[in-house]
Amino acid sequence: MQIEKLKTTLINCSLEEKDILKYKYKVQDIHQTLPQFDLTGWIDSPIQNQQELLDSIDRVASEIRACADVLVVIGVGGSFLGARAIQEALKPYFGLAEHGIEVVYVGLNMSGAYIKELLSYLDKKQVYVNVISKSGGTMEPALAFRVMRLYMEDRYGEKASERIIVTTDVEKGILKGIADKAGYRQFVIPSNIGGRYSVLTPVGLLPIAVAGVDIRAIMAGAKQAAEELSESDLANNDAYKYAVMRHMLYQEGYSIELLASFEPGLNKFHEWWKQLFGESEGKEKKGLYPSTVNFSTDLHSIGQFIQDGSPIMFETLLHFHEIEGDLQVPFDERDEDGLNYLSSRTFNEINAISKQGTALAHAEGGVPVIQLELPKLDEYHLGYLIYFFMKACAMSACLLEVNPFDQPGVEAYKRKMLELLKEK
Amino acid sequence: MQIEKLKTTLINCSLEEKDILKYKYKVQDIHQTLPQFDLTGWIDSPIQNQQELLDSIDRVASEIRACADVLVVIGVGGSFLGARAIQEALKPYFGLAEHGIEVVYVGLNMSGAYIKELLSYLDKKQVYVNVISKSGGTMEPALAFRVMRLYMEDRYGEKASERIIVTTDVEKGILKGIADKAGYRQFVIPSNIGGRYSVLTPVGLLPIAVAGVDIRAIMAGAKQAAEELSESDLANNDAYKYAVMRHMLYQEGYSIELLASFEPGLNKFHEWWKQLFGESEGKEKKGLYPSTVNFSTDLHSIGQFIQDGSPIMFETLLHFHEIEGDLQVPFDERDEDGLNYLSSRTFNEINAISKQGTALAHAEGGVPVIQLELPKLDEYHLGYLIYFFMKACAMSACLLEVNPFDQPGVEAYKRKMLELLKEK
Repeated sequence: MQIEKLKTTLINCSLEEKDILKYKYKVQDIHQTLPQFDLTGWIDSPIQNQQELLDSIDRVASEIRACADVLVVIGVGGSFLGARAIQEALKPYFGLAEHGIEVVYVGLNMSGAYIKELLSYLDKKQVYVNVISKSGGTMEPALAFRVMRLYMEDRYGEKASERIIVTTDVEKGILKGIADKAGYRQFVIPSNIGGRYSVLTPVGLLPIAVAGVDIRAIMAGAKQAAEELSESDLANNDAYKYAVMRHMLYQEGYSIELLASFEPGLNKFHEWWKQLFGESEGKEKKGLYPSTVNFSTDLHSIGQFIQDGSPIMFETLLHFHEIEGDLQVPFDERDEDGLNYLSSRTFNEINAISKQGTALAHAEGGVPVIQLELPKLDEYHLGYLIYFFMKACAMSACLLEVNPFDQPGVEAYKRKMLELLKEK
Repeated sequence: MQIEKLKTTLINCSLEEKDILKYKYKVQDIHQTLPQFDLTGWIDSPIQNQQELLDSIDRVASEIRACADVLVVIGVGGSFLGARAIQEALKPYFGLAEHGIEVVYVGLNMSGAYIKELLSYLDKKQVYVNVISKSGGTMEPALAFRVMRLYMEDRYGEKASERIIVTTDVEKGILKGIADKAGYRQFVIPSNIGGRYSVLTPVGLLPIAVAGVDIRAIMAGAKQAAEELSESDLANNDAYKYAVMRHMLYQEGYSIELLASFEPGLNKFHEWWKQLFGESEGKEKKGLYPSTVNFSTDLHSIGQFIQDGSPIMFETLLHFHEIEGDLQVPFDERDEDGLNYLSSRTFNEINAISKQGTALAHAEGGVPVIQLELPKLDEYHLGYLIYFFMKACAMSACLLEVNPFDQPGVEAYKRKMLELLKEK
């Protein structure tokens, strides 16, 4: 399967194609030096042969689906945002996917109520655990794993070790040590891929396979993206075009990029995107603040601000032409609401028209819009889009002259907290 | 019950008390003229005797809980954000509240998949519907109500009219006309209260009562707030202090206010706050952009940006001293993770320390923090906090010299969409 290329279009924006293309040589330079950064294993990994890895993920996922009602994923930041994003985008709004089981996330916060209530909830279910951490040293997942490990041993005795799957570094770290000693099955987080670029590794793939998502379709979409977006010429690389556009808008003085979509299932995908761009670019007192909206819901909320408030933002609009699942507006002979004129339409058709209405309204309000168009919201195109954003983000951070792959500011909070904890 | 007053504190901020108090007379003027605006019925309504209304909401809520598995709430913007905020903040993370039934929201988007899947989901449940709209003319809830009304009539025949509760204007509008004709039971949206200020009316109170929340405790907290915050003297009114602080920070050049809390259950409360401030202030090319984070989760995501990125934001930190539900960190004799030193602590204690660590780290990063402190996360204090934010928001918008109660920009999108729909 091949998709039409992702299309990047500017709507109501002063940027001109010829000015964008002035970045041609700068982009080419960055393209060539990018692989010299640490943590750029994600650039080529979707092109490599990963059949063996995918087979082994599928085998474990089948086992989990057969033996458990719930998979408890333990992870924070890049160790859960990607899996949750894909899972939520593709699962039904009510209930579970046909071939999937429930996946719940823990170790992503330090709420006592959250983890306590999770344990009672699990008591009536059969459980597997997938703990995901490169080092095992981050406080939130480490504490949650301590709780879940004792819980599993208490419930399943010696069999607990068969129900705990570890996704961690290949050779070092606390979690690796624990897993080796206890004989837990392990998946490897490649040492050359950082947290927020790791969704296409076992970090993301095992949980979403358990949830019933076709991981081969995800990877096929990512592979197409990796091939197409290996193009060094800005004119032929839409990820780089998007990176240059957002960079130019930043240079023009915009402070906020608002990622917008019209499908409620994409809310968690937005959260993944926020980490990717916020953590990659937000350093050295620079960067576009990444914020997100889900329309049409948020048109009745923050929509007022976008339309008429401080003119500090531009909008990046995700537009999927085809969405699975739809309903025709029913005919009602009473027509007391006066909506019979829509009864030949479906909700998705009206949603698409509301998309156009929004773009027109925002044009009037003076908000630049970058539209990213994809044929369909499914596994394949989400895989494509994820790679697209990772590649664009790396380019964009380099245009900003910051390292796309470190996060010194996250360490500041971890350090302060540890000092306080050890003090008291 | 009386709470300690909500405390507003500045951490790491150049604002000084004496400069804040320079707004004394301006604030006093606004305080006196505020009730002259249209749509300010919310200012005094919590102080008025509402026993009869609360009794009738409780009666209907009990009936719904007894006769239904699910309440379907139809509404968009201010017609669902408040109810969902309170319900999510107080319900268990997994499963339902002891005395509540499930509440689902529809008519808040135009996703065909969402409403189609909802209908199949409902087929196995007993259903009541609460449709909430002042006019009945907004597209999203109007379409959803058309679908749900036919569905209910199909399933329940003549009895459908007993299972549909309408919350709408007292005398005018499409929905009022439909409800009168069909004989649906009705609750009134006071004509002097606008959507985003309406959570403490039947708009919010009926759904949250059905979800098992004690609405009398909510209203008691709101009443205390309404009394305390009727104080015209800035020095003694923390809602006004907060309004002045955020206004001064805006004047200093900050573009974004980041509402932060450390309880995952407050995510939907954040969404309510975003509408309140975004829609009240975002006009005439002015206003602070309201954005939100949930810590510690988002410290591992957008936290990097807050710490080190563009210095365009300040943070408003919600701090509840007591949270229901907690778990002690278990002792593990193996101590392979080295965390036994925390085994006398609970998760909530560690969460509180992470709050301190965050404030210290952000201080280092130069991010001003306004802390709003409350004794406990419960019905009473949420009622207080909701009123606090509404009063602060009205003051803040007036300081900005915009009307806190209109939303001309939302109309722009509605108009464009209708033009397109009628054209095609």
